[in-house]
Formats: sequence, structure tokens, C-alpha cells
Amino acid sequence: MAVFLSTVDPGFEQDFATLLGAKREDSPDVDSTVAGIIDDVRSRGDAALVELTNRFDRVSIGPDDLRVSEAEIETEIAKVPEEQRAALELAAERIRAYHARQVPPDADWTDDTGARLGWRWTAVEAAGLYVPGGLASYPSSVLMNAVPAKVAGVERLAVTVPMPDGQANPLVLLACRIAGVDEIYRVGGAQAIAALAYGTETIAAVDKITGPGNAFVAAAKRRVFGRVGIDMIAGPSEICVISDGSCDPDWIAIDLLSQAEHDESAQSVLVTTDAAHGQAVAEAVEARLRTLSRRDIAGASWRDFGAVVVVRDLDEAVAISDRIAPEHLEIFTEDADELVERIRHAGAIFIGQWTVEAIGDYVGGPNHVLPTARSARFSSGLSVLDFMKRTTLARMTPGALREIGPAAVALAEAEGLEAHGLSVSARLDRLNEG
Amino acid sequence: MAVFLSTVDPGFEQDFATLLGAKREDSPDVDSTVAGIIDDVRSRGDAALVELTNRFDRVSIGPDDLRVSEAEIETEIAKVPEEQRAALELAAERIRAYHARQVPPDADWTDDTGARLGWRWTAVEAAGLYVPGGLASYPSSVLMNAVPAKVAGVERLAVTVPMPDGQANPLVLLACRIAGVDEIYRVGGAQAIAALAYGTETIAAVDKITGPGNAFVAAAKRRVFGRVGIDMIAGPSEICVISDGSCDPDWIAIDLLSQAEHDESAQSVLVTTDAAHGQAVAEAVEARLRTLSRRDIAGASWRDFGAVVVVRDLDEAVAISDRIAPEHLEIFTEDADELVERIRHAGAIFIGQWTVEAIGDYVGGPNHVLPTARSARFSSGLSVLDFMKRTTLARMTPGALREIGPAAVALAEAEGLEAHGLSVSARLDRLNEG
Repeated sequence: MAVFLSTVDPGFEQDFATLLGAKREDSPDVDSTVAGIIDDVRSRGDAALVELTNRFDRVSIGPDDLRVSEAEIETEIAKVPEEQRAALELAAERIRAYHARQVPPDADWTDDTGARLGWRWTAVEAAGLYVPGGLASYPSSVLMNAVPAKVAGVERLAVTVPMPDGQANPLVLLACRIAGVDEIYRVGGAQAIAALAYGTETIAAVDKITGPGNAFVAAAKRRVFGRVGIDMIAGPSEICVISDGSCDPDWIAIDLLSQAEHDESAQSVLVTTDAAHGQAVAEAVEARLRTLSRRDIAGASWRDFGAVVVVRDLDEAVAISDRIAPEHLEIFTEDADELVERIRHAGAIFIGQWTVEAIGDYVGGPNHVLPTARSARFSSGLSVLDFMKRTTLARMTPGALREIGPAAVALAEAEGLEAHGLSVSARLDRLNEG
Repeated sequence: MAVFLSTVDPGFEQDFATLLGAKREDSPDVDSTVAGIIDDVRSRGDAALVELTNRFDRVSIGPDDLRVSEAEIETEIAKVPEEQRAALELAAERIRAYHARQVPPDADWTDDTGARLGWRWTAVEAAGLYVPGGLASYPSSVLMNAVPAKVAGVERLAVTVPMPDGQANPLVLLACRIAGVDEIYRVGGAQAIAALAYGTETIAAVDKITGPGNAFVAAAKRRVFGRVGIDMIAGPSEICVISDGSCDPDWIAIDLLSQAEHDESAQSVLVTTDAAHGQAVAEAVEARLRTLSRRDIAGASWRDFGAVVVVRDLDEAVAISDRIAPEHLEIFTEDADELVERIRHAGAIFIGQWTVEAIGDYVGGPNHVLPTARSARFSSGLSVLDFMKRTTLARMTPGALREIGPAAVALAEAEGLEAHGLSVSARLDRLNEG
């Protein structure tokens, strides 16, 4: 059973600090293994990729099999039941509509010196999306990564997805098809990241790599960062629910368990102004845990990292939630909209009891790749901006240079950078001659 | 003397690949030293900070001296000549005006299901800015980091700047004052980064750390990433100039040298359609090198990493520049505006011969913290967005949930996440009862 804290308890600060500081993830030290794999793929290309894939995924493929053929994709996606296909299409459409609004505007203006200033956004040319194999191979994650990339204007989007024992996931392939993925490769692990970053004979290098993965994938992404861009390294997922007691305790219990069932390291926290309600939710969690199919995982997460925090009032609830800076925040209070205004640190907020977090995982429209482990204090969920970059633009006129150039010369001299100063003063001299 | 390449040469591709792939930076392996320093500051706080500062900076301070007092700041900034003060103020004002336009809009709309969707941007609460000591202590960099943070709405902005032998840099302190920095600490190196990330008795922890530094600082930033946000790890600076021969060769020579004088690892490249012009620029560089005060540094950079690339036409110039993906790109051609449209990868573009890059280093308005080492393919210069984060918002109505909820249930079931499905279907059941 999770911890039950109250802000009026004398030991609260210490207990809450323990909860916040709990180390929820073991990071096995796989860095030297990963370094070896990356070097191998860099130097031997496809040959290394094929060997590693055959060994780790228990298959026997050749270089020509690395790319999943159109025929195979067609065969696999034909297996998807119509209801699931329709659900994926609805999800893709809603995610596309939401993310289309994120495309940032360019800027171009003339200031009072006559200088033209601005910036321009352009898409990353080629992106790679890592999709895990096995149980964690989620078609929804394919959409959440691939759709923003395509909305941004990425021309070439390559997916790598391991197929252990040769098993493809039809829904993942269908999600790739719906999202407009251009190339699919049956490789996984650090070797897939190495191939995307450095390129092989079959897989051309990309500029940016996103997508979740295990410890090997995470270590490989850290290693290739700089050569290519990467997204955040996601930690175990989290939910915080703020409730004033007006929502059915059973609904909150299921919501808490929907994070807990992801991972034994997931964290679910209820913050409530009503101690009896908190108790009722905790009881409902226990009741639901008796029948849930993933009760071992969800139960361990709830036991080790779950919490009910009873607060004096909603002001305190906001403060506690901001200290947690949760990945997902559900606000189930009478005046939820007003409370949202006061929250500062959260990856995504779900407002009102009809806005269950799982809607956001699939069909809400916003992205489900969100900052974990309190990083919502300084970072954002995945968006179209992750697949674009900004170039700043400046155009001086002779008049503008005359007006602001002397200050640049003064600062260059103060910083001891003579050529910087000369580059401006040579032009100013010409203007003064003319 | 730099290499002189031409795209018509049979060996061009290989030579250009060598130029692109040149390893310009030695990264000394300081990681274990840095890990020790961080652990020490984490566990002993101010005591460690004071010891390390006294040792590395050859001073003898106590914990009470860590923070630079208002009186000391006043005394130091009184030493700044009026011309430099006015130049800094002009720079700050122009940087502020440019960055104010970057504050991103929030979004809030209702879609055709009745669901309310949107997002909201909020500022990082506390940021730390690392400022190097000694020769690389640039007041302009203080403005380029601190002004965007303050425009974003960061409440608490702490600067760490080492003062070796007790020497303060009056211009750096004045830049902090003008930019609205809230706290200044006389510490540097990995110990400063550790203090900003984990906090000590005197220095409260921040959420995000930006600013340039040496190998120790860079390694420390990599280590604390995740605990706090960091900016990019900047490499040696770069300039690419595209010229059709219409600009004075001597101006281009000085512009190339203004990057080269930063660092022996800097890179300066001229891409031109006119071989004789390329030759004239190379000669002008040699002539300027004879008298330049930083000729040893600039000369080494030009000799080892400089290049003149002669191209057949401007289309080829654009392609070559995009492969370099330069930090700074000057375009000095007859129809520069048209050429700008075709460039895809560059940190900042300076358009036309009056727009010298050094203007952008100081007073242009755009940021001078820009992506190096070809990372303009996937990343952007520093901006207001680096000090803000986005929270996505969703609010379902019963009608919206009825319309899109079943698709979420179908996908949750397909992914084997029972509680996800239950969390939606429990609400749908209630709606269907009602």
C-alpha cells in the first residue's frame, strides 16, 4: 500500500522529500557495451548490423532483409481488425490537427535604424524514430513521434523496430503507414541507433533521433548526441491527481493504476483536500488491484512509489503539485479551470473528471511524450518544434551600420577582439569616406 | 595557408569530406575529476565550494564572500568608461527588443467534438548562467544569455563567474546589472555547475543552466543534465561566407579572421563563384595576419581549418553551405535576399556586405549563442524558448468523451493496457447509464 501523508503532520516535509527524491530507476551500466556496438556498426556497417540483429533477435536475415518490404507491410497490416484501424486513424487525425497549430511563424521586420531583422524556421531533413519491440511496442507512440515530424515537414522519416524471432507487430506497421513513415528497418537496440546516427550501406544517416527504448537504446542516444539531435531520455511515467472529493473515488483509482500498470517504477500520487476521499481512493485502488491483469506491475508501483497526500486547501494542492512537477496532472475539482491557471510545472494537464489521462495517451490530440522525473520544471513534451530549427536573419543598411556599428567596435575592443572591431570599422571608414 | 578547393577538381568530394570531418577539438577526459568535484559540492556544500575556489582561483575567501556584494558591484562598475557603458546599454536594448518578439503565444480552442484543447507557456523559475573567467569572460555573452532569460520571465537569475586572483571584470558585472541578473557568485569550474544544480547553503539550486565554459564546465553540465536543464555544449566557432566577388576582398578577409581569432580550433570558409576573388581574399587574409594582435591564434585556425571553395554557380554555393551547416553565414552576393530563401541549415545569416557578422556578436539583436559543428541541421540558437516550457491542456465534455472515448478503449486493449481502457470505459458506462 502506498504512503499516506498529510501536510499537517509534523514529519511531512521529510516524508515528502523522501517521496520526491525516491530513486525510481536502476540505470544498469551498459555504456561500454554500447560503445562497442556503436563502433562496430560505424566501421562495418550492414555486416555488423546483420550479425547483431541475428544474434539478439534470434533471426537469420541478410542485408537485403534489413528493410521491411512494401509487400510485407501490406501483408501484416491486412491482419489488423477494422475497429483498431479506425481507432488508429482517428488518433492520427486528431494528433495531426493538434500539432498543425504548433507550426511556428517566421518573423521579418524593419527596426527604427532601418535594419531588417527576423528569423525563419525550417524542418530537419531526415529523422529516425526508434520503436521498441515486444511488449513495449506501442502503435500510439509511433503516431506521437511520427505525426509531429511529418507536420514539421521532415522529408525522410525512417523507423527502426526490432522483430524478435521474426515477429512483426501489425499495428505498429499500420501506424507507420498512417503517419507517413518513409522507411522501416527490422533492427533494434544500440545497433539501430548507431545505424541511424552514422548510416550504413542500407540505412542512410539521419539528423535527429527520437523515440523510447531500453537502457541500451538510451545509452546509445546519449552517445550519438551532438552527431545528431535526440529527444529527451524518458524516465518511468507519472501521474498526479488533484481532487477535492467531487469525483468518483473508483475513477481516480483506475486513473492512478493506469500509470502504475506501465512499469514498477511508475509513480501515482493523489493530492486531496479531503482525507476521507483519499482513504476511499486508496481502498478502491486495492479493490481494483485484485482483478487487474497487470496487478503485479501496478501493485509494485503503487506499493513502492504511490502516495496519497492530504492538504489543507487547494492553494496547498497547487504548491505540492508544482513541487512534484508531474508528467501528467489530472485536476478534478469544482473549479478546475481556475486551478489550472495557478499550476506552473506539469507536462500535460487534464481538466475535469471527464478528461481522463488515457484519452491523452491515444486520441486527445496533444502529445503523450512528456517530461518525467520533475523535468517539467525546465522542459516540454514532444512537439513540432523538436523537428524544426530556427535560423536568425539580419540585414543592415549603411544607415543602420552607421548608427549601431560604433557600439560594436567599442565592445569588440573592450573584449580584446581586434578583428571583430576591424570588420566593422573597415565598413564604417568606407561609409565616412563616401 | 588554408586549403583551396574547387568543385571541378576530381578529388573535390574527398577533400571536402576531409574538411567537414576535421576533428577540430580535443576533448580532454576530465570526467572523473569532474565527477569527484560534483560529489564533493553535493555532500559538503559551501565548505567544498570555498576550498575548491581558494585552490583553483588562488584566493582566500570564506563562505560569506561567495556572493559578490552590492557594494563591490557598484565599486567595480564605476570603473567602466562611459563609451563602453553606453555600448552595453545599446546592445542590451536591441537584444531585448529582438527577443521580446520570441515570446510564444498560448493556444486555446474548441474542436468539433466540443473538447477544449490548447497549451500554455510558462517561464523556468530559476536559471543559472555560467560566465568564464579570464580572457574568455565576455560581457556580450552575459547579455546574450541573461536578457532572453529575463524576457522569458525567469524570476531568479544567478550568475557564477570565477575571479582568479580576486580580479573582477567590471564590464561583466555591468552587463549583469544591465540585464537584471539577481545574484552573482565568485565561483567557477565544475564546482560552480555543481552548486547551481544541487544548491549549497549560500547558492540555491536552479532549474536550468546556460553559458559557455571550458572542458571541465562542459563535462559538469553533461553530468547534471536531467537534474536541471542545460543549453547546448558549444564547440569552436565557425563562419562561412558566400561571395560572388562583389564585395571587397579585404572585408571578407577580416570577417574570416574575426572567427579565426576566437580560437585555434575555429573554422572560416569562403565559398565563391569567382576563383580570382577567392585568391584575392586569401592574399588579404595573409596581409591582415601580419599585423593582427591575435595573429598566432587566428593564423593557426586559418592554416589548419580555413578553406576557400570555388564553386561553379550559386546553386552549388548553397549546396556546399548547407553541407557545412555553418554557425554563421554571411551572404555577399548581388541578389542576397533571393539566396537566403534557398539556404536550409545555418545558425544565423548575415545578408549583404553591410551586415558584418561582428554586428551580430554585439548589437544586432539576434542571439550570438548558435549551433556549431554542423548541429544547425537539427538545432537552433539560444532564445526565449530555452527559458520557457509548454504545458499541454485538454478538457473533455461528456459529448467529446462519447465521441472519441471508444477509440481510446480499442487502442488500450490492443496495447494490452487494461487499466487505460477501464479508466475510459468506466466513464463511458456512466454516460450510457445517464
